Amino acid sequence: MKRYYIEFSYDGSNFKGYQIQPGLRTIQEELQKTLKKINNNKITLVHASGRTDKKVHAYKQTAHFDLDIKITTDKLKRALNSYLPNDIYVYNVKEVPLDFHARYNVKSKKYIYKINLGEYCPTDRNYVYQCCHKLNIKAMRLAITYFEGTHDFRAFVTENKEKSNCVRTIYKASIKKSKMKENQYEICFIGTGFLKYQVRNMVGMLIKIGEGKSKPRDIVDILENPDCLAVIHKAPAEGLYLADVCYDVIM
Amino acid sequence: MKRYYIEFSYDGSNFKGYQIQPGLRTIQEELQKTLKKINNNKITLVHASGRTDKKVHAYKQTAHFDLDIKITTDKLKRALNSYLPNDIYVYNVKEVPLDFHARYNVKSKKYIYKINLGEYCPTDRNYVYQCCHKLNIKAMRLAITYFEGTHDFRAFVTENKEKSNCVRTIYKASIKKSKMKENQYEICFIGTGFLKYQVRNMVGMLIKIGEGKSKPRDIVDILENPDCLAVIHKAPAEGLYLADVCYDVIM
Repeated sequence: MKRYYIEFSYDGSNFKGYQIQPGLRTIQEELQKTLKKINNNKITLVHASGRTDKKVHAYKQTAHFDLDIKITTDKLKRALNSYLPNDIYVYNVKEVPLDFHARYNVKSKKYIYKINLGEYCPTDRNYVYQCCHKLNIKAMRLAITYFEGTHDFRAFVTENKEKSNCVRTIYKASIKKSKMKENQYEICFIGTGFLKYQVRNMVGMLIKIGEGKSKPRDIVDILENPDCLAVIHKAPAEGLYLADVCYDVIM
Repeated sequence: MKRYYIEFSYDGSNFKGYQIQPGLRTIQEELQKTLKKINNNKITLVHASGRTDKKVHAYKQTAHFDLDIKITTDKLKRALNSYLPNDIYVYNVKEVPLDFHARYNVKSKKYIYKINLGEYCPTDRNYVYQCCHKLNIKAMRLAITYFEGTHDFRAFVTENKEKSNCVRTIYKASIKKSKMKENQYEICFIGTGFLKYQVRNMVGMLIKIGEGKSKPRDIVDILENPDCLAVIHKAPAEGLYLADVCYDVIM
């Protein structure tokens, strides 16, 4: 038995999220169906770095799985891509030690949220949130810095509020103007890990601040009072990309 | 009766092209269905600057139509976008003289063809041609200059070879590296007008040159012998965008 690590990208538009759910099209299911064909019809579990929600995309998602067959990484990459549907693509395959774990060994993750403040763009509608009105980017840039550091993000988790540990560290949070498209911005978070809906809720809070409905300092208040009942609307899924997953070991 | 000019964009992925065809989903049909609702249930013909093929996108397509009802351009824009599906968006509406014609008055058009020479990208699969191998861009940049000027483009038209007049003028043709994505290029043509499949055939020829299967000077030979039977494969539709339509009058 050998353990393999893969890096892959996907278009989340036509998936009900990463994780297997009976009767629904998921990324994990497509990967496992494909690996079953490669691995002598044996059910092969895929362990990703984490889940992504319905319609969320990935530029770099990572996973590991074990195979019984003998195959070179080059051939495995080709085999995976020849069976996978055209909205998933595996661009890197490596053999790793049997104690490597794609989720437990994660050191940091990066998420990018794309938002268009200009006129509606049909070709981007599944890939950039079409906000289509002006936001106070200056206020949002001040606000986003308050997310940096180690905080209890309980208030930014829509579900599972009973979750025991919502403390996470955000190393860097920033808002960049798109190099290519006018009126388009990329909101970027790098951290130890993110809770369910956390990024979309943080972006939702930033949009509220950009619209003048909240103040940048409100983020400080919410993070200091994680059990407060702040009204936060999560930003739509289509603007969100899992952009990087880093490990202690050099992959 | 008043005549209106519109500028609109669309995602061609789920359309069978611009022009109405019975039983198929087309952009013209969606526009006319919408205008019928606005124009007191009266059939309203839409005259675009020209057709685009199945799966071809538009950043800027233009059209005109006549309405009997009284409506401000602001209200008409809102009404159009509220009825149109989310893969078409009208971003400009103007009232124009009754002798304006969106096709006959065209002065020039611009097409952009997007091509990815790097690894396959799932989120771009419907918006950028996934060529996924290296091309000799230097040779292609020399080759593309031979398209500039006034030529008989008969050899670059897949169908309707009997067409009487295939003489067109290309003002400018260039290849730009994408500002945002590594290994992505934009092939750009500005000209008086383009024949059916002409841009995709010119791009197909450029790719052949980039692969070393033809030489840049072959374009000169083909243009000088328009009835030659050169083997040209048209590039896939998904990379193509109608990017601009210009008129004599300032619109």
